[in-house]
Amino acid sequence: MNEITIAQLQFSVSTDKEENLERLAEALPSVKAEGADLVCLGEMFNCPYDNACFPVYAEPEGGSFYTALSYLAKEYGIILSAGTIPECDAEGRIFNTAYVFSPEGELLAKHRKMHLFDIDVKGGQRFMESDTLTAGNDFTVFDTAFGTMGICICFDIRFPELSRMMALCGAKLILVPAAFNMTTGPAHWEISFRMRALDNQCFFAATSPARDLSASYHAYGHSMITDPWGAVVHEMDEKEGIKVTTIDLDRTDEIRAQLPLLSARRPELYFL
Amino acid sequence: MNEITIAQLQFSVSTDKEENLERLAEALPSVKAEGADLVCLGEMFNCPYDNACFPVYAEPEGGSFYTALSYLAKEYGIILSAGTIPECDAEGRIFNTAYVFSPEGELLAKHRKMHLFDIDVKGGQRFMESDTLTAGNDFTVFDTAFGTMGICICFDIRFPELSRMMALCGAKLILVPAAFNMTTGPAHWEISFRMRALDNQCFFAATSPARDLSASYHAYGHSMITDPWGAVVHEMDEKEGIKVTTIDLDRTDEIRAQLPLLSARRPELYFL
Repeated sequence: MNEITIAQLQFSVSTDKEENLERLAEALPSVKAEGADLVCLGEMFNCPYDNACFPVYAEPEGGSFYTALSYLAKEYGIILSAGTIPECDAEGRIFNTAYVFSPEGELLAKHRKMHLFDIDVKGGQRFMESDTLTAGNDFTVFDTAFGTMGICICFDIRFPELSRMMALCGAKLILVPAAFNMTTGPAHWEISFRMRALDNQCFFAATSPARDLSASYHAYGHSMITDPWGAVVHEMDEKEGIKVTTIDLDRTDEIRAQLPLLSARRPELYFL
Repeated sequence: MNEITIAQLQFSVSTDKEENLERLAEALPSVKAEGADLVCLGEMFNCPYDNACFPVYAEPEGGSFYTALSYLAKEYGIILSAGTIPECDAEGRIFNTAYVFSPEGELLAKHRKMHLFDIDVKGGQRFMESDTLTAGNDFTVFDTAFGTMGICICFDIRFPELSRMMALCGAKLILVPAAFNMTTGPAHWEISFRMRALDNQCFFAATSPARDLSASYHAYGHSMITDPWGAVVHEMDEKEGIKVTTIDLDRTDEIRAQLPLLSARRPELYFL
């Protein structure tokens, strides 16, 4: 048994950046009391998901928001996967960035969204992240007291190559701050997280903002956890809420022994 | 519009090898009359799915069964994806092999199952193909009057790398003779074919034998077609039957324009 208790905070995003931080701080005592080892937030949890907002809300690594997150992780002794926030660098570029802090408040991992979300579905969702954002160039795995984890962001999940790389590097739990929409969410959210977990025989924890119909972008919500057999451990609805779930990461080894997908790969024959 | 009409023959497998051929021959006039351009059969359609049978039923490429299939394709002017049959070679090796014949009766493609099915699920299915079979070492795409297609066999679908290679080589329709079982079928059949189609924005036609509870291996059945949006075009039940379906292969281009997954890949960052 290698149990980890995960708290997923599916919150609406306030236009007041600090208010998002305050709501996180308010939630931590109760989820800590429920035994949370890891707390997860959604994509762009401190900034409306809107190209007009990303440059305005952006902060550099080490900025005040970053520092506050680090402080909260240490204060409560939790791993904090602080969703994503817009990050600016010295060259004026902006990234969609996920920071993960250790229970000691140190930076465990930083992932910049590698695949920008540019879609234009006929009669459905249009969004062009590349109008304002720059893509990251690295995949991200990191070690914790519970073993190796990976992290990627929303549209990154669309690319089986990325999840595969994280699994091959040992990730048994992959965190995905994400915000699917009302076109792709109903069609693809659940199947995507089920299938990546099944293919890679590991757990996925996908955390979304709650749906806010007063915002310009309507997030699908439905934060969920999927397991190495491709089953749904839990799935929220679209409303605000907190879900605390305990999973046994050793189940990855069990499934891998019975249905040996990773070891039966034939990488010498693949050219991806 | 680039329409193709596909007939999927979900038959039980007779222990009498020739009877399986006769049933195919009997079905062809009616599916041809319904406009079938392509006829698909299930995995091991002429041989019980049992390690004890593979060596007994095996024939070399160009053997009498192969010749009869070629003749039928030409006789009816169809593309014939003749499921799979056990193939033996001069060295005494046996492969799980899919032949595809052109409407002129020529061999369009030959795929030897690349990933052998060795599983042992606690309280569920156990099967070790590698006890008798040798794996193929090539992925398979081929050109037709309807464009490029790909083919792989059952357990091959478990490996996202393989479907991806076929899609990158231009496949807009991927044929999968398959025989999932009563452990993996209910859990993974539908999601696998939906997700591979979604990821690669192409069609999949998965054709299974019917379920035969008197056989040692109980096939799941559920022959189906999935589309580039990840939706189910149709799905059969477990019983014997024939399903004729027309799909428009141009839908792949439509979906790829709206949700550019293939072009948004970042292969320079992948190491698979």
